[in-house]
Amino acid sequence: MDLQRFHEYFEKNREKHLQELFEFLSIPSISALSDHKQDIERAAQWLKNQMEQLNLENVSIDQTAGHPVVYGEWLHAEGKPTVLIYGHYDVQPVDPLHLWKTEPFKPEIIENKLYARGASDDKGQIFMHLKAIEALFSILGTLPVNVKFIYEGEEEIGSANLPSYIEENKDKLAADFILISDTNMYGPGKPAICYGLRGLTGLQIDVRGAKSDLHSGLYGGGVQNAIHALVAILDSFRDHTGKILVEGFYDDVRPLSNEERKAFADLQFNEEALKEELEVNELFGEEGYSYLERTWARPTLEINGIFGGFSGEGIKTVLPNEAGAKITCRLVPDQDPDKIIALIQNHIEKHTPKGVTVTVTKFDSGAPYLTPFDHPLIQTASKSYEKVYESPTAFTRGGGSIPIVATFDQILNIPVVLMGFGLSTENFHAPNEHFHLENFDKGLRVLCDYLCEVANLSL
Amino acid sequence: MDLQRFHEYFEKNREKHLQELFEFLSIPSISALSDHKQDIERAAQWLKNQMEQLNLENVSIDQTAGHPVVYGEWLHAEGKPTVLIYGHYDVQPVDPLHLWKTEPFKPEIIENKLYARGASDDKGQIFMHLKAIEALFSILGTLPVNVKFIYEGEEEIGSANLPSYIEENKDKLAADFILISDTNMYGPGKPAICYGLRGLTGLQIDVRGAKSDLHSGLYGGGVQNAIHALVAILDSFRDHTGKILVEGFYDDVRPLSNEERKAFADLQFNEEALKEELEVNELFGEEGYSYLERTWARPTLEINGIFGGFSGEGIKTVLPNEAGAKITCRLVPDQDPDKIIALIQNHIEKHTPKGVTVTVTKFDSGAPYLTPFDHPLIQTASKSYEKVYESPTAFTRGGGSIPIVATFDQILNIPVVLMGFGLSTENFHAPNEHFHLENFDKGLRVLCDYLCEVANLSL
Repeated sequence: MDLQRFHEYFEKNREKHLQELFEFLSIPSISALSDHKQDIERAAQWLKNQMEQLNLENVSIDQTAGHPVVYGEWLHAEGKPTVLIYGHYDVQPVDPLHLWKTEPFKPEIIENKLYARGASDDKGQIFMHLKAIEALFSILGTLPVNVKFIYEGEEEIGSANLPSYIEENKDKLAADFILISDTNMYGPGKPAICYGLRGLTGLQIDVRGAKSDLHSGLYGGGVQNAIHALVAILDSFRDHTGKILVEGFYDDVRPLSNEERKAFADLQFNEEALKEELEVNELFGEEGYSYLERTWARPTLEINGIFGGFSGEGIKTVLPNEAGAKITCRLVPDQDPDKIIALIQNHIEKHTPKGVTVTVTKFDSGAPYLTPFDHPLIQTASKSYEKVYESPTAFTRGGGSIPIVATFDQILNIPVVLMGFGLSTENFHAPNEHFHLENFDKGLRVLCDYLCEVANLSL
Repeated sequence: MDLQRFHEYFEKNREKHLQELFEFLSIPSISALSDHKQDIERAAQWLKNQMEQLNLENVSIDQTAGHPVVYGEWLHAEGKPTVLIYGHYDVQPVDPLHLWKTEPFKPEIIENKLYARGASDDKGQIFMHLKAIEALFSILGTLPVNVKFIYEGEEEIGSANLPSYIEENKDKLAADFILISDTNMYGPGKPAICYGLRGLTGLQIDVRGAKSDLHSGLYGGGVQNAIHALVAILDSFRDHTGKILVEGFYDDVRPLSNEERKAFADLQFNEEALKEELEVNELFGEEGYSYLERTWARPTLEINGIFGGFSGEGIKTVLPNEAGAKITCRLVPDQDPDKIIALIQNHIEKHTPKGVTVTVTKFDSGAPYLTPFDHPLIQTASKSYEKVYESPTAFTRGGGSIPIVATFDQILNIPVVLMGFGLSTENFHAPNEHFHLENFDKGLRVLCDYLCEVANLSL
């Protein structure tokens, strides 16, 4: 793919494109605040107009129980892959307003950075996809692949209505893969593809001893203390390195390949800087794995909260009869949340001390997600990045989850490619959100190249 | 000692004595409520009058920063032991009033039980000592021992001003032993002497990891979790039987003698009934010791409260940076609270996991107390009980502390004899407090006999 023509197109149209983006960013489409419901609708309408100007077809504003989804498609690249492009046009609130150097909904460019709420997360990035399509139409007279857009308005408030929308529109949304630009690059000038995310499952453990709290003098030494029983259970979950001792816990963990480990190591993650940032004198975790491997590709079991007995000021000589803890596990492929919960329940039964009963309550869970590292969609994306950035692409995994990715994975069951152009320093969700226009300019070319190259893959 | 003459005296004067006690119980001397300050003063004045009628000397109402102490003495039994009789004339509040079957400050006798606030705890019992003195004077024309009374008005609100009163009046209060009737019998018809009490010490453990709570997805598996570190420390304190693993913890524990163990066993404590009462399927504790031995004569380490992270409803995927627990130990002779705290601190240092720092905050402590089981004052008391009750005396120890006993022990450093006439079923601190008059009648004779017999001891 010869990128020069795209480069010229975007240079020539840069002012016009930025004017359009300014217009889009000027709409305060804050999904969390009901006062902005009309702005949400304006933003959806703005996207619909854009899509119609691009000659996308079946463009529609699809109502949900919450804010609408904007849909558009172009499906005339016969025999070619279909890409479903997802993003969100809603933004976070802007408080505290007095910390902004510019007005959040009056975009300004300062030192080649575009300041505005949503500049990077995610209006700037979803706008890029539209402009990439525009350039492809303009230069090629057609699109190299089939395209479907699904831009939602509730991402910042948890995408509550998106799963049912996807479920109900499964056929309409059918595609070969999903492309999302809502993640970060590894650093300035360093592109990254996040190809895996951890899943999540959780439970609450409630321990109960005697019928009520007891006097620690009268009964102490003779009756089980619910907190002691709880800490015995909790301490049995992990060894001193954080390795999880629940039988079978690691059975389904897909091992890291040598290539992945090498790719992680090549990132030369700075553990010293992290220690300084977190103000800890040492990092911690399972032996035999680097920090990145532990947080990206190994499962965890973490106590998120614990409670029992007296926690006020001073002393209360009580022998508590109730205590509880909340636990979540980050899961990696191919761990199954339900199976993991069953293993933990089995472990708890085995490790419950005398004199107490234990109740386990399950929380919602989400499966881990992984597009294999060597999948052609991932490798092709990395090459498109490298062509433009002239820097190796970092292959990363996310320690957390992006719920919507798991949702897409579960309902549509197709690969997800996360090609983000943000930087972790760009103040998402905070005052002075901005977007480095260098990545706007380069990203447009990366996306054009990628869609052209994907056309050559047989998926 | 021929008890017949005392029996006759008390029978003859029973109506008069009960009338006096009714008068005393009618004064609502609630120490916790400032509205009753005048009632407290009336009760003190009532006691002063009683003591003066008995021809006690140096009778005085001694003001403190709180409610006054009533003092009186008779010191003409030359060469004989001196007994310091302690008790309290203040009572607990009476709420909830609607649950009382009688009016709390209008004493009534129902089925030979005297209903009134303070009937058993402790006005009825301190009145008995005055009437025993009256009988001794009347029958013998003198007292067999020297006597000092110290009746306080703040026991139900923690005796805050008594330690300084005792300290300041050390010489005035000098005696060979202290006699207190404010504990329970082992059961109906079963006298008991509580000859030991556990002490108390405590501390708070605060664990701190990173500078703030962290996202469990981004950092989970790579950074120490303060709650996990805390539960590792806490779980290291005891084995699965409750035996304490802190090095040196048991070093100074005075072993139970065979006689004591036999005396405890003779009580035939009903563990099955306790399990039913507490609704637990099993009791718990250190192997090789009975339930009574564990709760009376063995030290404990109990977590009284634990806190950290998120404890609201549902789930929060946080990796907590702070967690804490409150711990108290019940101590037995000859453990020293300060030494125990130092041993625990040392244990914590050794068992602190990587990646966190721990802060320890000490709480107030109280020493354990023991009058040796075979002390003549104890053995003599048991014989006086047995003469009247015709039932063996139970030698018990208390799992909790009676702070004032530790105070007397520390400041005056003389034995304490706890000869109580209450029953655990008599609703102290609750509606419908009452006193079994059988124990009032028998107790008067026990006290007369005891003071006569003590005269023969060389202390």
